[in-house]
Amino acid sequence: MTLEKTEHEAALYGPFTQVVRELVDATIRTEVDDDEARAVQAELEGLVARLRSRQLEGAYAASHGAAARGRPWGNAVVGLRNPLAPPLAVVRESGRVWADFHLGAAYEGPPGLVHGGVSSLILDQMVGEATGASGKPGMTASLTLTYRRPTRLGDLRAEAWVERDEGIKTWARGHILDAEGVTVEAEGLLIVPRWLRQQG
Amino acid sequence: MTLEKTEHEAALYGPFTQVVRELVDATIRTEVDDDEARAVQAELEGLVARLRSRQLEGAYAASHGAAARGRPWGNAVVGLRNPLAPPLAVVRESGRVWADFHLGAAYEGPPGLVHGGVSSLILDQMVGEATGASGKPGMTASLTLTYRRPTRLGDLRAEAWVERDEGIKTWARGHILDAEGVTVEAEGLLIVPRWLRQQG
Repeated sequence: MTLEKTEHEAALYGPFTQVVRELVDATIRTEVDDDEARAVQAELEGLVARLRSRQLEGAYAASHGAAARGRPWGNAVVGLRNPLAPPLAVVRESGRVWADFHLGAAYEGPPGLVHGGVSSLILDQMVGEATGASGKPGMTASLTLTYRRPTRLGDLRAEAWVERDEGIKTWARGHILDAEGVTVEAEGLLIVPRWLRQQG
Repeated sequence: MTLEKTEHEAALYGPFTQVVRELVDATIRTEVDDDEARAVQAELEGLVARLRSRQLEGAYAASHGAAARGRPWGNAVVGLRNPLAPPLAVVRESGRVWADFHLGAAYEGPPGLVHGGVSSLILDQMVGEATGASGKPGMTASLTLTYRRPTRLGDLRAEAWVERDEGIKTWARGHILDAEGVTVEAEGLLIVPRWLRQQG
């Protein structure tokens, strides 16, 4: 896929997916009456059918294969076309990666708090990003999360960096921060996947 | 909220949210042409506005407070009204909890595989469910994931159980299985939150 085509699709599907994220949030929070909810549902069913009239057979990366390298649009954390992804826009800087993001109603666990598993979802991605940024892409072999204090829904930051590496293994750390500091810490061991080793 | 009202809302919003899950999947996979994508987006914007004409001020559990106990509909893993949740229908049986579920395009990490962070999201919920089922609801203090082998998108099962407990601490374990066996293991330490201790 050419850079031009990628930019064109990003301009089309970035805003499209953002509207679907709004819909996800509204689905959780709406208090319209029953008739209105049923009417909206019927219209949504029609829109789903229109979108599905021509679609990939499977998931995004699985369907696009190597053509999707550098375009992880289906990814559950950073995917431009995945409404489940906040999405994180990960910045590489000075040997670490970071992202500022907002988590709303869709990411709730305990009342008003980020689901602990959502923090681990984000940190899994971030230690992977840090490892990739260091030049050794890896898949998570193990990840340990330590929850220092509750993380409130709202504006947050995630950071990650590589601690050390040895052969196909990389150890990376990361954390999530709110305005007062670190709420969750992660330590991961990532291993270069076999298919990448064979290429290398 | 009465049981009758809860059942009424479940019958309304269960199917509604399922259609939004379909839309999330279709957003990732659609290949309709640009004009059609823009037309669908415009209609979606209208539907979001209709749903938002009357809505909760904040997230689901935060807005409903104690009234939402036993009705975790906003939860990112089990929430009936949360399109991000697969959702897991967790069964309590013989001292453990389990759930069968399907993960499609929205949960992808590497091509065709479940995002490692999605596995951790699910297992965080499951060790919490196991701890709750044992009579000591807890929030995760730490969680360690061990990835035995890749988890393919598709039909999966998650199980969790309590290993031991001591005062406010409970240690629980869990795993995700495909047709061939365990793919990811988790071990968690959960602690009864302060607000529940004060009630107890």
